[in-house]
Amino acid sequence: MPSEFALIDQYFKRPTSHTLLGVGDDGALIAPTPGQELVVSTDLLVEGTHFLADTDAEALGWKCLAVNVSDLAAMGAQPRWALLAAVLPAREAESPACKAPAPTHEWIEAFARGFFACAQDYGIDLIGGDTTRGPRAFCVTILGEAPAGQALRRSGAKAGDSIWVSGRPGRAALGLAHLQGRTTLTEPQLTDCLAALHRPQPRVALGLALRGLATAAIDVSDGLLADLGHILEQSALAARLQIPNLPAAGLERDCLLSGGDDYELLFTAPAASDERVAELAGKLELPLTRIGEIVAGAPGELVLNDDDGSDITPARRGYDHFAPQPVPRDSNG
Amino acid sequence: MPSEFALIDQYFKRPTSHTLLGVGDDGALIAPTPGQELVVSTDLLVEGTHFLADTDAEALGWKCLAVNVSDLAAMGAQPRWALLAAVLPAREAESPACKAPAPTHEWIEAFARGFFACAQDYGIDLIGGDTTRGPRAFCVTILGEAPAGQALRRSGAKAGDSIWVSGRPGRAALGLAHLQGRTTLTEPQLTDCLAALHRPQPRVALGLALRGLATAAIDVSDGLLADLGHILEQSALAARLQIPNLPAAGLERDCLLSGGDDYELLFTAPAASDERVAELAGKLELPLTRIGEIVAGAPGELVLNDDDGSDITPARRGYDHFAPQPVPRDSNG
Repeated sequence: MPSEFALIDQYFKRPTSHTLLGVGDDGALIAPTPGQELVVSTDLLVEGTHFLADTDAEALGWKCLAVNVSDLAAMGAQPRWALLAAVLPAREAESPACKAPAPTHEWIEAFARGFFACAQDYGIDLIGGDTTRGPRAFCVTILGEAPAGQALRRSGAKAGDSIWVSGRPGRAALGLAHLQGRTTLTEPQLTDCLAALHRPQPRVALGLALRGLATAAIDVSDGLLADLGHILEQSALAARLQIPNLPAAGLERDCLLSGGDDYELLFTAPAASDERVAELAGKLELPLTRIGEIVAGAPGELVLNDDDGSDITPARRGYDHFAPQPVPRDSNG
Repeated sequence: MPSEFALIDQYFKRPTSHTLLGVGDDGALIAPTPGQELVVSTDLLVEGTHFLADTDAEALGWKCLAVNVSDLAAMGAQPRWALLAAVLPAREAESPACKAPAPTHEWIEAFARGFFACAQDYGIDLIGGDTTRGPRAFCVTILGEAPAGQALRRSGAKAGDSIWVSGRPGRAALGLAHLQGRTTLTEPQLTDCLAALHRPQPRVALGLALRGLATAAIDVSDGLLADLGHILEQSALAARLQIPNLPAAGLERDCLLSGGDDYELLFTAPAASDERVAELAGKLELPLTRIGEIVAGAPGELVLNDDDGSDITPARRGYDHFAPQPVPRDSNG
């Protein structure tokens, strides 16, 4: 393996379009747009926890950036810059604790290809980073902008607001369940679910359109129940969900409720805007489903109305990296 | 171990002083100061590569932030915000590749104490982060500001400029050599060197004072020869160093040349400003040593004048995380 400096130069130093000074100095230099606030987020992806050892390198490169783009989408921000810190095993695995094969040039090149494909799709300059040896992990920090006072927060939901979710979440967790042998999908299902798992499409256009419309927003990374829980806790309100309205059924629905990893947006908006949201779905060619409403009640309380109208209480809300791994229940079996 | 959310709330959610929205949403919100450019940098610290498994938690917390602060110091920027992404083993080491004990509450509390001590000393708000399980590693991203056009870069050195270094670098690598049994220090030496290794003092005040005075700057993290090499490559010039002028001797000098990790500043300034730099040393109560000069020549070429006036050629320039570990030669033994 060539030196880390050579690697960075070869694969990760690319022309930027809106950056004063990019990769290669002690820090990057950017000029924030006057009148905009900066939105900043950081996400870790660690082998064995966020991706499997044999995950396709190009897909992984895409996803490392995409999950961060998704955080900015949930804030209603325009993504603009990113930094990538990569931990990669050295040629001869030198860590006494962790033996892993060093990535080949081809692996790094494919990872970079996926990363920059996402960067290009979302108009992002890679402006800095760090490379070191160790057990494989990636840390991406993303910066974006939103007009002063217009970023979407988790804390703004109001009683009576409608609760919406974009797309058809649940497929990523379902695809993972198949890969781990916990369920068996048909070929077309598998293709669909693996696309959701490996190449999530952050909902930036939706987030931008929700400025001034949504009262609160979050991306569904930990599972719908857990992520809705964050909105409820920070808005100090409760919610009632209509299970039959969820844009998923069976095992996929269970994956939606507690699996996450699809990076769709979950948001609240005044009921009076229901029609505007529905119109937005048409304009963006993206399903937006009204799944329930915010109600007064104990902060964080969540009532799920099942098909027969009865209330059911969820067993667990989502994914916690320090808790035992969730195993989706197969509601069909 | 409690859930990651509980951990973050308990130890890392602290009041901020200049942040619109801190830890707890999809992203943080900050308002850049009009007329300032943003300086952004990210650094990884991985167990076994950047710190030893038994490193004191409080010292590690300090250092994780300090090494990033040092990058901003080298840019002449005022540090303002940071994000911390932490990979920590779970209670039952669940990674098949990496078995490591989970950190105790006391460990995490001590780490947070060190981190926030550094944050407070340098006026930094922690505004976001991420926590996940895995082999221990930390990724800090730091943001700061500098007036438009005034940030220090590596590329501005001019032929005839003096080359300066702050403090007494070499001590951190010397302390590490002692800890690894490669040398034996006296008790007072050891105290001094371990302070440099575990609680580096980033030179922010110096960086700010060098705006409009230094032509190029870098922090000495990889060793003086490697870091000076970066300035020379980016400025497309050569340099001549007077070895007897280095603020270190013997093994400490070898550590300075290729060991790094002290986070002093290495900078160039016009020879006509030598007196101004010397005065600055007095004002900051920080040794600033003129160690050589920038000369015309093959870009990156480095000539070292030894005690007897002869030229010597360095064997290797510094630390590369993908190359074999450097073992400082003991010039006394």
